[in-house]
Amino acid sequence: MADTLSPEQAKQLAERCAETMYANDQVSQSLGMVIESVGPGESTVVMPVRDDMVNGYDTCHGGMIFSLADSAFAFACNSQDEVAVAAHCSIDFIRPAYRGNVLTARAKVAYQGRRSGVYHIEVVNQDGKQVALFQGNSARLGQPVISRERTE
Amino acid sequence: MADTLSPEQAKQLAERCAETMYANDQVSQSLGMVIESVGPGESTVVMPVRDDMVNGYDTCHGGMIFSLADSAFAFACNSQDEVAVAAHCSIDFIRPAYRGNVLTARAKVAYQGRRSGVYHIEVVNQDGKQVALFQGNSARLGQPVISRERTE
Amino acid sequence: MADTLSPEQAKQLAERCAETMYANDQVSQSLGMVIESVGPGESTVVMPVRDDMVNGYDTCHGGMIFSLADSAFAFACNSQDEVAVAAHCSIDFIRPAYRGNVLTARAKVAYQGRRSGVYHIEVVNQDGKQVALFQGNSARLGQPVISRERTE
Amino acid sequence: MADTLSPEQAKQLAERCAETMYANDQVSQSLGMVIESVGPGESTVVMPVRDDMVNGYDTCHGGMIFSLADSAFAFACNSQDEVAVAAHCSIDFIRPAYRGNVLTARAKVAYQGRRSGVYHIEVVNQDGKQVALFQGNSARLGQPVISRERTE
Repeated sequence: MADTLSPEQAKQLAERCAETMYANDQVSQSLGMVIESVGPGESTVVMPVRDDMVNGYDTCHGGMIFSLADSAFAFACNSQDEVAVAAHCSIDFIRPAYRGNVLTARAKVAYQGRRSGVYHIEVVNQDGKQVALFQGNSARLGQPVISRERTE
Repeated sequence: MADTLSPEQAKQLAERCAETMYANDQVSQSLGMVIESVGPGESTVVMPVRDDMVNGYDTCHGGMIFSLADSAFAFACNSQDEVAVAAHCSIDFIRPAYRGNVLTARAKVAYQGRRSGVYHIEVVNQDGKQVALFQGNSARLGQPVISRERTE
Repeated sequence: MADTLSPEQAKQLAERCAETMYANDQVSQSLGMVIESVGPGESTVVMPVRDDMVNGYDTCHGGMIFSLADSAFAFACNSQDEVAVAAHCSIDFIRPAYRGNVLTARAKVAYQGRRSGVYHIEVVNQDGKQVALFQGNSARLGQPVISRERTE
Repeated sequence: MADTLSPEQAKQLAERCAETMYANDQVSQSLGMVIESVGPGESTVVMPVRDDMVNGYDTCHGGMIFSLADSAFAFACNSQDEVAVAAHCSIDFIRPAYRGNVLTARAKVAYQGRRSGVYHIEVVNQDGKQVALFQGNSARLGQPVISRERTE
């Protein structure tokens, strides 16, 4: 179905999927993540590094950087209105992020089959410097993201 | 230095390292993690899945499970009083964790060289069922975890 | 079916699966791999590092070490008479292997569900020193490894 | 040093590094790999799937696909005349390759720091269909790839 959409329709569908997911995702909300943009197979999510995300050396906890990348991954791999979950993820930590930094995660599909997908997510700081590289492998569950409305 | 310690001394050193790290680690504290035990190259950390860790379907956010495993990894790879940071991590999500579950992460060294290390962490729920398998690759920075006291 | 076997029967089944696979696996044969033992969810495979497996510095090509670990993984994840293929693998290279070394790969199941599995494989040299750590994620295809005999 | 080169010089340096490595790499040679192109941080390597690379079902052994991707990774991460070795690699197997297929591996740098690097390698078949996605993490050893000539 999604394959017959115009580029504009595909982008709108991706946006509606992301809205639905974000509304249900307390963790992304409480970590202060903001969806900057989303499209078919891609997303950009921003998160400032808050005081409560750093350790005693003022560097951001790896789990917080992972959570940001994981959310960008989720919006990208669910963007075609098929529920997909993370099966396997890996992350390379390249440079520390510090209190007050603003991190941007950009997710992009590397492969999407009927069931499984592979996505690459790059996390950069406010200077465009790479903070982490993330790969997410997803598995579709055979359900739509957006519940179907009754039509009558 | 650490190599000449008795098993009991090595365990005490690991405990002191973990205490020092935990005291500085707001994220582990605020996520409600409790260190159950720690020893040379290993650790066990427990975390209940709280209301604010789940999404609209009551399943725990992957980033929270990652954070738990990552903390257990950190306590294990810093247990010999050498500061080590995560360079690369991967995680396999096996089954969902739900609101109210109590998760236990057990970290164990698979390899530790002079500089780099590889650790395996298993996350299980309160029924002993596997929730996730995590691998952490660490890099030592050449600094002690516990600041040296003045001797005067 | 396999779950109701005695330990001895499970081991024999694993051995028959490995024989069937090895007979069809030219690459494992031509690389000189020898199956030392196999059981349910585990296997041990040995491979000497030959002249044609090393580069100009006499160190074994990473692809050859991967191939050894991958074969041990295959024998382990197909040991219950269900065809399984590699979906995702990762390898950490710990120390070089040299011409004339004899490498042993030991595979062990970390998780096996109805469809997907995770296996850990350790590759050591003839002195028991770790050469590589490998993780293999498998997917079962719903077919038996051993073709069923006609019964009439 | 390499940073002050013109694009043309950087490409020539990458080519000389790859030639030096290939001349020493019996495995890449004996597997029939051909370097199609190489440049700073990137390479393209081609390998036909021969009879001796397939199993009884005519599908290419995963270790052979890994070896191809690993060689492309090596040419890319050694392209700036600094010896680098593989520290950690992961591979996703997307679709089988068959006897007679011609595989192309394209390596591209995702991150290169002073010491460590991350490279993405895509393996496609003769129809441009994805066969595997590979990530390679490299570590530089502080030596040049091309031996320096005496100047006297």
